[in-house]
Order: sequence, then C-alpha cells, then structure tokens
Amino acid sequence: MKINTNPVRGMKDFLPDEAELREKVRRTIIDTYTSFGYRKIETPVLEHLELLTGGDGGENEKLIFKVLKRGEKLDISNAKEENDLADSGLRFDLTVPLTRIYANNQGNIPLPFKVIQTDNVFRAERPQKGRYRQFMQCDIDIIGEKDIIAEIDLLMASSQALLNIGFEDFTIKINDRKVLHDLANKWQFEEYNHDQVFISLDKLDKIGIDGLRKEMELKQFPQDAIEAMIAEIPFLERENTSFLTDEMLHVMDALSQFSGGKFKIEFDPTLVRGMGYYTGMIYEIKIEGYPGSVGGGGRYDKMIGKRTGKDVPACGFSIGFERIVDIMLGQAQEKQKQEKLAIIFDPEKDDAKVAYLRVRELEEEKYSVISVFKKEKKYGRQLKKLFEMGFTHYGEFFEHNLYNIMPLELKD
Amino acid sequence: MKINTNPVRGMKDFLPDEAELREKVRRTIIDTYTSFGYRKIETPVLEHLELLTGGDGGENEKLIFKVLKRGEKLDISNAKEENDLADSGLRFDLTVPLTRIYANNQGNIPLPFKVIQTDNVFRAERPQKGRYRQFMQCDIDIIGEKDIIAEIDLLMASSQALLNIGFEDFTIKINDRKVLHDLANKWQFEEYNHDQVFISLDKLDKIGIDGLRKEMELKQFPQDAIEAMIAEIPFLERENTSFLTDEMLHVMDALSQFSGGKFKIEFDPTLVRGMGYYTGMIYEIKIEGYPGSVGGGGRYDKMIGKRTGKDVPACGFSIGFERIVDIMLGQAQEKQKQEKLAIIFDPEKDDAKVAYLRVRELEEEKYSVISVFKKEKKYGRQLKKLFEMGFTHYGEFFEHNLYNIMPLELKD
Repeated sequence: MKINTNPVRGMKDFLPDEAELREKVRRTIIDTYTSFGYRKIETPVLEHLELLTGGDGGENEKLIFKVLKRGEKLDISNAKEENDLADSGLRFDLTVPLTRIYANNQGNIPLPFKVIQTDNVFRAERPQKGRYRQFMQCDIDIIGEKDIIAEIDLLMASSQALLNIGFEDFTIKINDRKVLHDLANKWQFEEYNHDQVFISLDKLDKIGIDGLRKEMELKQFPQDAIEAMIAEIPFLERENTSFLTDEMLHVMDALSQFSGGKFKIEFDPTLVRGMGYYTGMIYEIKIEGYPGSVGGGGRYDKMIGKRTGKDVPACGFSIGFERIVDIMLGQAQEKQKQEKLAIIFDPEKDDAKVAYLRVRELEEEKYSVISVFKKEKKYGRQLKKLFEMGFTHYGEFFEHNLYNIMPLELKD
Repeated sequence: MKINTNPVRGMKDFLPDEAELREKVRRTIIDTYTSFGYRKIETPVLEHLELLTGGDGGENEKLIFKVLKRGEKLDISNAKEENDLADSGLRFDLTVPLTRIYANNQGNIPLPFKVIQTDNVFRAERPQKGRYRQFMQCDIDIIGEKDIIAEIDLLMASSQALLNIGFEDFTIKINDRKVLHDLANKWQFEEYNHDQVFISLDKLDKIGIDGLRKEMELKQFPQDAIEAMIAEIPFLERENTSFLTDEMLHVMDALSQFSGGKFKIEFDPTLVRGMGYYTGMIYEIKIEGYPGSVGGGGRYDKMIGKRTGKDVPACGFSIGFERIVDIMLGQAQEKQKQEKLAIIFDPEKDDAKVAYLRVRELEEEKYSVISVFKKEKKYGRQLKKLFEMGFTHYGEFFEHNLYNIMPLELKD
C-alpha cells in the first residue's frame, strides 16, 4: 500500500545534520543550567484538559490537540461537543505542567526549587514558514524565591547558556509589569483595561505610533487616555530611566558586571511579554541582526496559588530553542553558500536537463552558484579552468540522474 | 480552582533524581551509538492514523491514542466511529515512523543509513506497576545492508552501550526466523499457522511444557504436529547447535571475540520476538538476575518495501531504556537501604506520633531502619550512642512536623 509519507501537517522531520545540531544545543543548555544549580524534571506530553484550559494558557488554550477518550468513556452517539469526546490533550507549554507537578509534590520538594525542562510542546497554529506545531521549549524556573536574587540567577544562567552556545552581542531587555500598570494608571486607563492596553503597546515596534492610535481607537478607549499615552511614547522609546525601580537597577547592575562587556542589558518600558499571568519583572533577549527574541520570561507570583490554594513566588525564563537552532542553521548555510558548484555532463550519456533540474532542487541551498558544463575532451584542463573561475566543487553523473559531488582542487 | 494535579492516568512525572539519571543514560546510549557511526534523527510524536494502522504495529495498533480532528474537519453530529473523529495519533513505536521518514527522503539518504532514535512513544495499555503509557524508546537501525555485517554492527554497538552504562554479565540470545520456520515445517504446521505457533512457543518460559500443550490444543492445531513439537522441546531448551546456521555462527563468533569475556552470546532456538515483521535473525539481551530483557531486535527486510514499493534490507535493535533505568534505580535504592535513620524528638515540643508517621511515609524507601528516640539531656552522648548502634543518619524536628536529616558522624 502506497500512502502519504509526509509528516502530519505543520510538523517536521529532522534528518541527521539538523537532529544532531538540536541535540548539541539542547545539551549545552542543560549543562549550563545544571552548573547554576538547576535540576531537570520531566512531565508527560499529555495533560488533563481541565488543567490545560484553566486560564493560564491565554490564546494557546484554543490551539490544543485533544486526545480521544478510550473504551467505555467514549460515547460517540451521544457526544455534542469536543469535551464530550476528549478529556486530555497535548501540552502547549511547560509552565502549566510545572505548576501541576509542583502542586502534586509540595511536601517532597525543598524550596527554592530551581528547575530545568527541555521538552516538546504542541500548538495547532496555522502552519507558516519556520513555525511548527510541535516544537522544543527549554525553560528554567525558580519556585519559592521572592527576592530579585531569582531574577539575577535566571538571567545570568540564560546569558551564560547563550554565550556557551556561541552567541555574543545580544541584549537583555527588562521591564516590570508594575511600571506598565503605573503608566496605564497615569494615562487614566481603567484597571480592567490594562491588559488590552499592554497588548496594543506591545505591537508598537511593528505598527508604529499611527497604527497604535488606530488600534486604541478601534478598542474604543477614552480619547483623553489615548492622547496621554501617545504623547508619552517618544519618551518611552528612548532609554528613559525615570521609570526605573530600585529592583530593576539592582538586576541590571548585577548582569552588566557579569557580562564582561560581551552582552548588553537595557531597560525597555515598552516591553510587555504576552502572557497575562506575569506579576512583576519581565525580560527578553534579542540578538543583533535577527528579528524577534531568543528568549524571555518573567515573575508569576500568583499562578501556583491557583493550584495549591497558597501563593508561592515564582519566576521563569524560556530560551527560544527553535529560534536559536534556526539562526545557527542559517549561519551554517550562509557559510556554505560561498561555495560554487560546476555540474559536468556527458551529452552522449546524460539527460542534462532532467539532471540539472534535479541538482538545482537538491543543492541550491548549499551553493551560491550552480552551473552546468558540457564535458570537454581535455577533462583535466577543463577542471583547471573551472578552478580558476572560482568553482569550489564539481559534480559528475554516473547513472541517469545520479551524481557525485567532489571538491575541486588542483592536483600536482 | 482546586483540580486533579496527578499526571494523566498511566503516565508518570519524573522528579530530579530520576530525570537526571534518565538524561545521563540517554546520553551514554547516544554517544556510544554515535561512536559506531549511527546518526540521530527525530520525527514528530503525531503520525497519520493511516500509517499507524498499516499492519506493522501488531497488537500495538489497538493501543493508539487518537487525536481529535480540528476545525471544519471535525463533524461531531455525523460521526459514527472513531476514525470519523480522528485522522492522527500518537506513535506507538519508532520503527513505523522510521520507514515513513526513509520513504519520504529516499533520494537524499545515502545507504547504508545507520540511524539512532531516542524518543517517547505512547501505548494505552492497562496501567500496571512499572509500565507506563508514555515511555522512552532507544532504537538503532541500519537500512540498506543485507549482509550480516549489519547484525554484527547493531549487536556490538548495543553491547558497548550496556557496558558504558555500567552493566556486565549480560547475555545476548540469538535465533533466526528461518530456524523457527524450519522447525514448524518439520513438525508439520501449515505455513499460515506459523506465527500463531511462534506466539505460543514464545511463552514456554512462563507456562512450561504442559501450559504450551494446553494452549496449542486450545488453538485446535493437529494433535500430531503438537506431539512432534512437544517431543522436541527438551532438545530446544538445551543449547543445541544442530539448528545453527553459518550466518548465526559468524555473528556469534564476532561478538564473542568483541566481548572480551565481559558478556555472553548464545543461540536460543525458542527465541521468537513478538513482532510479525521480522524476516531473518532476531536477538535479545538479558541481564543475570533480572526478569525480562533489556533490549532486542531483528531483521525486517520486507517492511520498507510496503512504503516505497521496493524492498530494502533493514535490521534494528531497541535498547530497553525504561527497564535499564528501573534496574539502576533499584540498585541505587538497595545501596541506600543499608542506611539507618534515627529520628529524635523533643517531647516538650514535638507531636511524636504525627511526626513519626510522616517520616516513615516519606523516608521508608531510603532507609533499611527508621527508629524514633526521645531527646536526652546529654545530647552529644546520645548521638555517640546512636552512632555506635549503627545509625548512619539522624533527624531533628524544627517545627511541628518538619524535620532535617543529617549524616551521623563522630566529631572530634
């Protein structure tokens, strides 16, 4: 039986080059965090739907892959809605399972609990380039520490992980939810509108001031508040220390000493971070020259209490594993792209057109130039000529459309 | 909201001690296989149901966690059966995804393709002690090599992995499906009954000769064939070289030279291995003193052809990751069990009974003895006495039922 051998829609297979790079990056991250005293835990990919839809997942709760009930529990003929058919689903992050495993083992876990998790999560997003429905998250969290020593620890360990992977020149941006709330209050937005205000403010980079005004007006906020906000944007965009708290100053100072000049740390009063559960300092790391972030996190002091009935301070950082691997693959390809390939075909044996198309399709990611040449009688002289033309590799056919690629070197 | 914080039924959370052991064993296995030239690949946990139920999964196909369709594809009111509601599911092994990824990338993969996979698989088995519905498999496979060099390679690499993890004194058992077919033919079972005969023969260890006869009679096989089989069992149980093929001899010879006396390799004509897709040599590794096997595999030359339309020889070995970690945890606990704990309570402050029960519950896995003592006035002398009694640790309360455990050492 011939069947569809593609991976499930929106998911990805990793062949050796990529799979091995992923394993290497994953190990570097785990080893770095371990050296900072974090300890690895592991939870199953399936969780009760009741937990996953408890409100801490925000938009992600709409993207859950739900798993069909089994045996007697499954009653298809009387089922009216999805939740009649499913009571578990694939996790969409590692934070929700962390709060569960902590709640389930409270008595046995000495605090502060410093945790590493590196595991796959699942979101049924609309498939798009570079984003997959299964992807790896690498999280660290500290449970049970209310002092900013926790923030300093998370950020030192995570920047060391990036340095160990081979990145420099990144920037840690920090802000505090309290700064955002103070601003929103000052602009006279009602408390219950703050999250919506922040969501719009977060888009400032992409939509600009005019776009922001338009979006705020669409959300029907009071014109006075909108104007107050817009008027202050230019001051927020610059590094404006008037909003800085002592806590942030302390964290920035510690990190900047730790950095040894290899990376930067700066205050960004427009930094929002998506999740609604953050209660204090929030942070994000950007790499010069690449859009988006390579990691971020924040303090969430109220989330664990929802499971245990008793608030426990907590904060976490998530390294953007997939983003980092993407950047590294891109760099490797750029490097390889300096290589030029000459394909040589023998018109008496080879179907040049078919072969050429096939070679292009398979090799075009690797070479900056791919060009086809008819095999000449004085083959050695032809290769010498190609070398002088700057070709680094040449390919020969040995059977209809099969070929070998060899480095082009001048032999004595 | 207070909700169920246990993992989903039949699945397991791993706290640091266990999670870190798992990571260590996993790395040792990957590193060993890498040094033998195997290369890591990775596929998503979700696969098309069409692939999972293609017939190569045997009984496992009944144990699939199916994932609910999404969006417009999901039509609950007209659904009659499970397959109207689901078109993907969680993989139950890594071999079926391997054949898919190979079929999907044939042109880009040079043969022989030596592959490592270490990933979670899922089976909705009835939960039982030590068996979980999500578990890690560590497979190696060689695609495109029909010579027994493949079998030798798989078995050398896998025994080296076990040695590197720290096991010795294990035994590799080998057999060949052809030997089994020859025997079944000799006993005059019809070809189409062979798999059923093998399934019963496989249980010989557990059910004995009488149990085997009873099961064969229940399956209504001809009495003559059953008698012929039963008559030969005693000869099969001993190491009987008359069934050995040259190929097996060659493999056994290579492995026994490689072993340096650290492990054994023996022929076992009753070895069956469960999966119906095996076509040639099959093998299994057992560790002295532990029931079950710590790994096994075999040759499956016909399976890939079902996806690609063209037979490609292949064989694989799967290390019993969960079994190995279980054995190691057991050994670690046995070692710790030699440790004795004295709990000391102050009758004026502590509720001894509550505390004692709680300590026992939390610590009884770790200590061979847990005993409670009233705190004496001459506390130093009491500790010295306990040390002389063989206690290795002592516990003190510092708040109602909270306590610290410390090693008991004589200080100068």
